Amino acid sequence: MARWEPDARGRLENAAMDLFQERGYLETTVGEIAARAGLTERTFFRYFADKREVLFSGSQALEQSIVEHIQGAPPDASPLDVVVTALEQAGAELQARRDLRYVRARYALVTQHAEIQERELIKLASLARAVIRALHERGVAEPAASLAAEAGIALFKIGFERWVNERKASDFAAHIRGALDGLKALTAHGPPANARSPATNAQRSAAKTPARRR
Amino acid sequence: MARWEPDARGRLENAAMDLFQERGYLETTVGEIAARAGLTERTFFRYFADKREVLFSGSQALEQSIVEHIQGAPPDASPLDVVVTALEQAGAELQARRDLRYVRARYALVTQHAEIQERELIKLASLARAVIRALHERGVAEPAASLAAEAGIALFKIGFERWVNERKASDFAAHIRGALDGLKALTAHGPPANARSPATNAQRSAAKTPARRR
Repeated sequence: MARWEPDARGRLENAAMDLFQERGYLETTVGEIAARAGLTERTFFRYFADKREVLFSGSQALEQSIVEHIQGAPPDASPLDVVVTALEQAGAELQARRDLRYVRARYALVTQHAEIQERELIKLASLARAVIRALHERGVAEPAASLAAEAGIALFKIGFERWVNERKASDFAAHIRGALDGLKALTAHGPPANARSPATNAQRSAAKTPARRR
Repeated sequence: MARWEPDARGRLENAAMDLFQERGYLETTVGEIAARAGLTERTFFRYFADKREVLFSGSQALEQSIVEHIQGAPPDASPLDVVVTALEQAGAELQARRDLRYVRARYALVTQHAEIQERELIKLASLARAVIRALHERGVAEPAASLAAEAGIALFKIGFERWVNERKASDFAAHIRGALDGLKALTAHGPPANARSPATNAQRSAAKTPARRR
């Protein structure tokens, strides 16, 4: 795994990921991480509250970047466009900052360990709240702010998964934008609320499926 | 708080919620919950793995109901409509099953205690995966399945929050449908991907805001 930061924080992150890969996440201790980084346990705890947190070093920066991009968006931009553009920008920054091998190794740990996934979900929920607050500050009302934030986070997650699972290196931001295009297609093509398109009704009758309970 | 289930599980849920309200969630022990329900601690652990889990008694039934509604949806229905209709149906069932005071008291605990919120997020992530699987079984491809599932869960969350925070008793399913209408409005009104509407461009120039980094 490449070295991506020369400072203590980066060395600890790097040592942790190397050990998680070599020995497993559960088997690695904070003491071993510190030793591998050439630092003390005490130094580790100056940077991270626990072993799990070493994987969330970039969360705060990510949230702050997204909020700043929302604050800096043109005042007339639509809420969803503001959010998605901010997520694309932050996604591009993350991609520039992190080695893709690190991102993939971290993603594998999140999917393999419930306790890491838990914290990931908490961080995403915190991010959603921060996005909602930033939209409120722009004068976006409810439920538009919550909808734009939650939809945006969903697009970020889906774009992220497509980015890390792609065989070839690709553009994270483009995957987020692609997910938005997919969502627009889904919301545009579905029958409108409390009504069905004539074509859909005709197909439904032809298929002789039981009526939905409503 | 009203009694809503006469069986042991219901009595334990009820006793737990009463005690959480009276003494606080952190202060209440499993032994106290069992005693209040007129049962033993051993019986408690036959139903629930821990104190927290007593608040998630309905999660599995909710997930199963949503999956079954997806499986039973007309084959030609759009993925997002399938998901949202299933969530509306399950939401209506939840509303019929649970006293609104219980739902509100439980929601207050989720927002107040990080460890409860954590489990809530895990359950929602599990629900999203179950929805994605059910869509795949219907032949819905990626990324449509993930998008419909994640967007649906977001609408469920937002609809739920609006339902429990409404002063008067209202219809949970209608709030989910209302959130979908809101999302459709957001995705329809935003500028299309990689393009801006002429009106928006004109306004943006007039406002003299800095160009977005893209």
